[in-house]
Amino acid sequence: MDAMREKTAAIIIIGNEILTGKTADENARYLIGELHSLGVALRRIVVIPDDADEIAATVRECRAKYDFVFTSGGVGPTHDDVTIAGVAQAFDRPVMRHPEMAAIVSDYFGAGIDESRMRLADAPAGSELIYAATARWPILATGNVYVLPGVPEIFRHKFAAIRERFRAAPFHTAAVYTREDEFDLASRLRQVAAMHPAVAVGSYPNFERGDYRVKITIEANEAEAVARAKSFLIALLDPFLVVRSE
Amino acid sequence: MDAMREKTAAIIIIGNEILTGKTADENARYLIGELHSLGVALRRIVVIPDDADEIAATVRECRAKYDFVFTSGGVGPTHDDVTIAGVAQAFDRPVMRHPEMAAIVSDYFGAGIDESRMRLADAPAGSELIYAATARWPILATGNVYVLPGVPEIFRHKFAAIRERFRAAPFHTAAVYTREDEFDLASRLRQVAAMHPAVAVGSYPNFERGDYRVKITIEANEAEAVARAKSFLIALLDPFLVVRSE
Repeated sequence: MDAMREKTAAIIIIGNEILTGKTADENARYLIGELHSLGVALRRIVVIPDDADEIAATVRECRAKYDFVFTSGGVGPTHDDVTIAGVAQAFDRPVMRHPEMAAIVSDYFGAGIDESRMRLADAPAGSELIYAATARWPILATGNVYVLPGVPEIFRHKFAAIRERFRAAPFHTAAVYTREDEFDLASRLRQVAAMHPAVAVGSYPNFERGDYRVKITIEANEAEAVARAKSFLIALLDPFLVVRSE
Repeated sequence: MDAMREKTAAIIIIGNEILTGKTADENARYLIGELHSLGVALRRIVVIPDDADEIAATVRECRAKYDFVFTSGGVGPTHDDVTIAGVAQAFDRPVMRHPEMAAIVSDYFGAGIDESRMRLADAPAGSELIYAATARWPILATGNVYVLPGVPEIFRHKFAAIRERFRAAPFHTAAVYTREDEFDLASRLRQVAAMHPAVAVGSYPNFERGDYRVKITIEANEAEAVARAKSFLIALLDPFLVVRSE
């Protein structure tokens, strides 16, 4: 899409409770905004059940295709917490008790800790623990896969602790609002997209307020490419029908 | 998961605007509740960019795995509206001008209709138009893939017009709220899941209000299986720590 290769990401939300509507997703919603403000191109969000094989297949595909993969959910102690097993399978690695994590968990729960609590120290072999000043527990990463918990407060807290490592070239966005009809704009927008392949051109008809009919967006992580495409677009539009641009 | 084969579904949300946070998804959110109340097991939600190849790959996989696939978005007249092309590719069929749809579109826009508007009549070859009393325009289905628009009001309106064709055996759900700790419950929940394979057992720790520590859910589309698993579970719990059950 542009000269500098973009950094790309996928989000995998794991949990029957989302698919059955018992809980509304908050984590993908939060991460969409974070990744965009960091300049990372989010390419896919997948919501799947608590099933180790499905997790494995989805993680395997995403880790190969995207720079960063974030999983949400399935990391507690119960039978339906199978994310660790799924991620391990996606990397063809066994699940091992991570020694550093075992020390942290033992220290936290104290003497007489049972197997159910010790399972918090299980991780795909070769996983990394990322320590952050603002997070009590380290964040687990297996290769390019960051394994985050489903509880929204903890998810946000953990992501916030590591967010700066994902920072890329920021996105630049322009928007033009017009009263022209989307049908009438279609061939001109096609021209903009064809002549300016470095930018993403979006077209969003407005069915609500009466102020404009279509919002056209231009986005890239090169400011100049956006400015050039925007000028090119504006020259093609009926100036009397452009409401505003930003 | 049970004796009667469940009906399963996937939702594919198509749109850069969702992945970049310009627009928040409303359609998956709506359809999650609709499918659950219809008794259809939603197995996957995928959000992908406006890219015909990605749409094709995702639709191809989902249409083979699930009974019903619903797409949202990418059906307007502009260069970034490539859902029809993607769905056609997923079925290895060409895009054709659908004769019935062409008549409807011509009738709506009247004489002198241009190519940009006529494109609304394009569909994967062999697609079906579903007419509903409550919907002005028919709903497009290609095999088991229902192609819906991204604009939330129209998405809901079109789905509502065809929802009864998806009705299956309703889900039955029980929930038990306890003050026991999830770590301590883990092995007992594993036992419930193992002894009652016909039900889905979920465990949701509560980090917010103080009333209970864990909500345990049991769900299936056989009421008796749910009742049996619930009795089995309750017998395993500390009765003094059960807050309530429903």
